[in-house]
Amino acid sequence: MIQRYGIYEIVLSRTIDAASNPFVDVTLSAAFTQRNRVVHVDGFYDGDGIYRIRLMPDQTGEWTYATHSNLPDLDDQHGSFIVGPAAPGQHGPVRVANGTNFAYDDGAPYSPIGTTCYVWNHQGDGLEERTLATLATAPFNKIRMCVFPKHYDYNHNEPGFFAFEQTASGFDWTRFNPAYFRRLEKRIAQLGALGIEADLILFHPYDRWGFSHMDRATDECYLRYIVARLSAFANVWWSFANEYDLMPAKSMQDWDDYFRLVQTSDPAQHLRSIHNCRGFYDHAKPWVTHCSIQSSDLHRAAEWVGQYGKPVVFDECCYEGNINHGWGNITAQTMVHRFWDGFTRGAYVGHGETFMHPDEILWWAKGGDLHGQSPTRIAFLRRVIEDAPAGHIVPIDIHWDVACAGIPGEYYLFYFGNRQPSFRVLPLPADRRFTIEVIDTWEMTLTELPGTHSGDTRVELPARSNIALRVRRSGERGRRGEGEKRWEGA
Amino acid sequence: MIQRYGIYEIVLSRTIDAASNPFVDVTLSAAFTQRNRVVHVDGFYDGDGIYRIRLMPDQTGEWTYATHSNLPDLDDQHGSFIVGPAAPGQHGPVRVANGTNFAYDDGAPYSPIGTTCYVWNHQGDGLEERTLATLATAPFNKIRMCVFPKHYDYNHNEPGFFAFEQTASGFDWTRFNPAYFRRLEKRIAQLGALGIEADLILFHPYDRWGFSHMDRATDECYLRYIVARLSAFANVWWSFANEYDLMPAKSMQDWDDYFRLVQTSDPAQHLRSIHNCRGFYDHAKPWVTHCSIQSSDLHRAAEWVGQYGKPVVFDECCYEGNINHGWGNITAQTMVHRFWDGFTRGAYVGHGETFMHPDEILWWAKGGDLHGQSPTRIAFLRRVIEDAPAGHIVPIDIHWDVACAGIPGEYYLFYFGNRQPSFRVLPLPADRRFTIEVIDTWEMTLTELPGTHSGDTRVELPARSNIALRVRRSGERGRRGEGEKRWEGA
Repeated sequence: MIQRYGIYEIVLSRTIDAASNPFVDVTLSAAFTQRNRVVHVDGFYDGDGIYRIRLMPDQTGEWTYATHSNLPDLDDQHGSFIVGPAAPGQHGPVRVANGTNFAYDDGAPYSPIGTTCYVWNHQGDGLEERTLATLATAPFNKIRMCVFPKHYDYNHNEPGFFAFEQTASGFDWTRFNPAYFRRLEKRIAQLGALGIEADLILFHPYDRWGFSHMDRATDECYLRYIVARLSAFANVWWSFANEYDLMPAKSMQDWDDYFRLVQTSDPAQHLRSIHNCRGFYDHAKPWVTHCSIQSSDLHRAAEWVGQYGKPVVFDECCYEGNINHGWGNITAQTMVHRFWDGFTRGAYVGHGETFMHPDEILWWAKGGDLHGQSPTRIAFLRRVIEDAPAGHIVPIDIHWDVACAGIPGEYYLFYFGNRQPSFRVLPLPADRRFTIEVIDTWEMTLTELPGTHSGDTRVELPARSNIALRVRRSGERGRRGEGEKRWEGA
Repeated sequence: MIQRYGIYEIVLSRTIDAASNPFVDVTLSAAFTQRNRVVHVDGFYDGDGIYRIRLMPDQTGEWTYATHSNLPDLDDQHGSFIVGPAAPGQHGPVRVANGTNFAYDDGAPYSPIGTTCYVWNHQGDGLEERTLATLATAPFNKIRMCVFPKHYDYNHNEPGFFAFEQTASGFDWTRFNPAYFRRLEKRIAQLGALGIEADLILFHPYDRWGFSHMDRATDECYLRYIVARLSAFANVWWSFANEYDLMPAKSMQDWDDYFRLVQTSDPAQHLRSIHNCRGFYDHAKPWVTHCSIQSSDLHRAAEWVGQYGKPVVFDECCYEGNINHGWGNITAQTMVHRFWDGFTRGAYVGHGETFMHPDEILWWAKGGDLHGQSPTRIAFLRRVIEDAPAGHIVPIDIHWDVACAGIPGEYYLFYFGNRQPSFRVLPLPADRRFTIEVIDTWEMTLTELPGTHSGDTRVELPARSNIALRVRRSGERGRRGEGEKRWEGA
């Protein structure tokens, strides 16, 4: 039986006319139906005379389908299948929830704790399997990675597989290389098994092969093909670009159109974003599901959450490391600080690592091993985040000099950053009581203060930097504020 | 003999009519003349029938004077005196030099390394003398201090002296208290003897006595009086306000007018600035000599130097300490980082300290002792700054991720801040050679690299944060760049 959020695949095999190009000459789709609901899914050519149409069924029960094609042999094929419960741990694609948070499709909580390994999937089996082994014990549940290989400092090796068919004179831009995509799918599935979202970068500027300046028709053909192949993988996100603004061959109109093409084609409606170098793409455009931001201005997180009304993900806030480039040599302390700063202003933050390596295996590009001191602390933060109660986590404006996010009246996470106060008065609601824990974000300690607290509460602090406070509503109601409005809820 | 930059004082004694108010009823000034040059100086009433007119002669040689007054007894007094060389170490008032730097009037170099002790001069002799003793060994050559006392957290004690005469029903806003001003003059002179500029704050909002909302006529009378009393002190700077934008009783027109009143009255033309809380006063206005800035955005220093074309002084970038307020609890590391960040972007930075104290003696307000770890490092930076060659120190735009200030072709101070590169390629001029020193700004070490260097130079770095590089032109000419323009100079 097919599992909910698994992949149902229609496989059609037909002899290919040598004179035709099935990648471009054949149209193929299926209409999947469950009672009155119809889901339109495009198929794709997988080489060797094989065509596939893939659905990620998001509801249990019986589904039927009928195919449509300009090839009579592929047209009007019918079938039905039963979808049962999801596999354990499979919660479906990540969605925007509560406006500025995320959750899995089945409602299970999800907060992205990302990392970046741009081309880990272009490094060959040995290193790629090592990366997967590292990820299995790392704190990350999202990874930024590219479809196309990368040409840049510390990235001069040639990839083993290309997305397009190679000929004696270069690439045939009208024919894809199914072997490349099967390999990519395998890696995405392996990430999925580890509970990691594949934030797939569709275009990027660091290129010596031509993928950054394909013509418009090729771009569109590529986008349709990759959506057809990958939309049935629950853990795919579409990142239209890494540093879109460093790609002069594409206009803003191109980006807008590509967003809409994918939005129209993708039956699973995976998350869609685009990442900047300098200026933002306008994240207010309706086809952008969340803000993918490169910036070290974590202190502006709450401003952008408010401005866009969408989840804000700092996908790049510099990387822990020691290379020459300023974006790749921040300390572990700074990285951990940025994580806490971003999360306690209602946003999400991503990691990366760029330590000099004798074989130029830098995590940020190629994966491999993690060498830094931040992942352990990020794992600690992840546990704190995953302990938060259900509800809409929002930035809470307490005062200019302390970051705070939480669920007003229920849950607050304060963070004092590089400040070192010896005490602080918290303006807690007076009509209920709270427990307070002092968190050392670097030492990873969590110390609960005695008793419960209500109203303006003076908290003694250790006069060190990187201290957070977790304030949670305690079971008992406060005695103060008799006449005030009581909190109504579970 | 009167010393250059010393004080020449005309003292006139007259019996006072009990019915008159000599503070407001009597006009008195002198025209001091040296050949064709005439300097107009206002006198002031000092109580007990004594009137004084003070000149800080800025040139040696013979001066003559003639007084003018609406009191016949004070009018048309004449005299002459000889001015000899300045006392050792006395270089006169600080001026703007090279557009965006400072220097003493006699051309000696001066770079402000400030601190803030807002009302140290209102604490009584015991603590004030202790503050002076601390300053004698501290690295600071400028201090921000208020004429009026302060009412604020950790500042609830009553001052011993007020600037206005007290009556049974409150202050007489038409009569000054000469005892207060004599005391202030003594402290300013003591600072001068320590080589410390008194950056005197004329108005501020933290007030329970009424000094922050005197009427316009009283403000103007006060400004004329203080200029008449203090302009002859070489080490006075006029800071029109601390946080002018938190003083709703004064309009922008008031501030503009007060600047011009002092600019017109002050024969010594001391430096004039105004300090903000949130938004800047328009430092482009011509009566502002330099930008006095409250901001933690040290990375914007070069931008503001370029925008205003005036010296930029970060007079407040938060204080080292551990109090509850976010502006008063940064770490020593952050303070030292901000000093280096500001200075290596072509600006100047000021210190302050706010550690909890059992008797509420916080350096930022009351002076006393220094407890923090930043002053030692600031002293180290001061030595580096004072070792710079003569010339116009400007921000130098090398690349987005490294701060640099210096004299192009001659001298560069690079700073990597919280980044930890393991190496960096410096784009040095190819037509001359340089020595390179690696500076650990926290450990206060300075390590010269072997040899001399020219053109693009790869420098191995310790992969720690808070590293600076000092690059100085070496005596020998480079061999490369034969065809390029040679540097012409000493």
